[in-house]
Amino acid sequence: MTTDRTRRFRRLELAAQLSREFSALSPGSRIPGGHVLAERLGAPYMTVVHALDELTLRGEIVRIPNKGSYTAEHRVRELFFLTPCPAAVYSYDTEVLDGVVREARRMGIRIRTVPVTQTNRLADIDWNSLGQLPDGAGVILNSLPDYCQVLGYLRERHCRIALLDSRSEGTSRRFAAELESFHRVVTPRGEAVIQALELFKAAGKNRVLLLHQGAHEDNPVRAAFRRGLADLGMPFSSKLELMIGNGYYSALGHLQTFLWQEYEFNAVLCATSASALACCDLFKRCKIRVPEDVAVIALNDAPVLETNDVAVTAVFWDPEAAGQELVKLLVARNPQPETVRLPVCVARRKSV
Amino acid sequence: MTTDRTRRFRRLELAAQLSREFSALSPGSRIPGGHVLAERLGAPYMTVVHALDELTLRGEIVRIPNKGSYTAEHRVRELFFLTPCPAAVYSYDTEVLDGVVREARRMGIRIRTVPVTQTNRLADIDWNSLGQLPDGAGVILNSLPDYCQVLGYLRERHCRIALLDSRSEGTSRRFAAELESFHRVVTPRGEAVIQALELFKAAGKNRVLLLHQGAHEDNPVRAAFRRGLADLGMPFSSKLELMIGNGYYSALGHLQTFLWQEYEFNAVLCATSASALACCDLFKRCKIRVPEDVAVIALNDAPVLETNDVAVTAVFWDPEAAGQELVKLLVARNPQPETVRLPVCVARRKSV
Repeated sequence: MTTDRTRRFRRLELAAQLSREFSALSPGSRIPGGHVLAERLGAPYMTVVHALDELTLRGEIVRIPNKGSYTAEHRVRELFFLTPCPAAVYSYDTEVLDGVVREARRMGIRIRTVPVTQTNRLADIDWNSLGQLPDGAGVILNSLPDYCQVLGYLRERHCRIALLDSRSEGTSRRFAAELESFHRVVTPRGEAVIQALELFKAAGKNRVLLLHQGAHEDNPVRAAFRRGLADLGMPFSSKLELMIGNGYYSALGHLQTFLWQEYEFNAVLCATSASALACCDLFKRCKIRVPEDVAVIALNDAPVLETNDVAVTAVFWDPEAAGQELVKLLVARNPQPETVRLPVCVARRKSV
Repeated sequence: MTTDRTRRFRRLELAAQLSREFSALSPGSRIPGGHVLAERLGAPYMTVVHALDELTLRGEIVRIPNKGSYTAEHRVRELFFLTPCPAAVYSYDTEVLDGVVREARRMGIRIRTVPVTQTNRLADIDWNSLGQLPDGAGVILNSLPDYCQVLGYLRERHCRIALLDSRSEGTSRRFAAELESFHRVVTPRGEAVIQALELFKAAGKNRVLLLHQGAHEDNPVRAAFRRGLADLGMPFSSKLELMIGNGYYSALGHLQTFLWQEYEFNAVLCATSASALACCDLFKRCKIRVPEDVAVIALNDAPVLETNDVAVTAVFWDPEAAGQELVKLLVARNPQPETVRLPVCVARRKSV
């Protein structure tokens, strides 16, 4: 009954043991080969190989083809997470930071949050706080446009940057030069919108209302929504794009006012889980049945979608997985910028 | 290399297999003994016994001493989580609900959130929403006083109640009669305060400032703080109890005003992780060193405490574990009310 999970666990256990052993060696020391280690440790050869792969990925050892493996010259011990202001770790950054910290713990790395401002006013960059970064530091950014003022500074300090990239095409074009030198974890925001529209279409729901949060035209969710409707041959009306505020009650208020106008729709695509809940609650009060009369999909998952009266389907990307990938990219120390594309996750429930 | 984690995994796997098998039997059917199952499945006897323990705990089978085990007459398939208002699942209830949903998923049970009001005004009890509860439903409550108006109703409907109990002694006395019939998961809020004070004392920090959130005298954190200071022979001054608002910036503002008054203290006990971060940030700007000049402890943990400049020590209870225990209590279907006491968790870092 050796399962995948068991194998993975053994490999990580062995990696931890070897990591301890190698940490006693000076940087650049030659490491014994896989067969030698397997015999000495009484472990299967392939498990040893996988454990060495793990250490290579973490940047603890370096493989030189046709020569062998060596302990790394400089091991990553600390990474920095730039956050727009100290309180953002309780809102905007929470879930991504959770993933970052979890992955870092597993690798024995310390994460330090560095607030870019104290007040979330971007005119007030906190240069003292940024000055704490060591030269060549590994830095994680959760958004690009907000930080554009500090990118030049990070470059001067030779920082290695991993960016969580949820940008629209417009922003991408504007920052194309910077992006070339970054490691990137790219979120599938557009793909998620398209997949959600496909679910609606398959359920015979063609008139889709979008509840979004982006104020400007360049919003990636809205752009994907329009493109998706066109590609799938579903009708578009600018009246069926509604900007909602932040949180449950704001969405409820906006939606209530919207319902009075009696536009026709039979599906709602909700940018946040809170707005999806607000939808369902309001529809229930108005005797609109979900999913019979109107289908609902959230572009964000939360346990509470599962516990709703009619459990709500979510098509989303996983912010914790994003955090984990950001750490891995910086630890791998690849001098070439790498790009990781997150998959779209679908939690199929009862609302469509 | 069979580890605890591997064993646990095998047991859960076997439990899942047996659960599927037993679900085909009619309720009240006799189940073969452990030795018979072990032989048939080719699994170690003790693993089978542990898997059967797991199913008993989940309420899927019932053991009758000296007679044998039987499939349960009624299996729990759905539990209800009462929340003060729909949006509370995004604030007050989030972490406990996460634990509830996680445990319920593992057991194949569906959780439904039921808002007690739509507006968080307790005068507006949503009786329609409560009317959806089936008779005899298993109901989870995350607080008592707020719900006291609905307790009578739940009793009429023969609901089985599991309460997360963080009450002060005063509230306990007032609701003593109700509490006798509830399953309870009791949080160690008072014990956490005492343990934190002990850490301060051991570090030679005797003048402790409390940042709390409770407006009334009957606040359990404040009560434990005063009792703890007295028990440990540490000085008390009512000037060193500061009520802060909700969130980082509110705590920052309150604390800033407080610092002008120049009361002497060398330790701060923070009810929330956000207030602990605000403390550390403010002290840094004022050139007050943590922990040399002032030690800091948070009564709530969050990954961001670990990523702070000076990583912050937390003495806390785990809200997700609380959620898991609440589900287990209702699933076990013990007719006698049971009480589970949560342990105090300590994440020892650098701030004390």
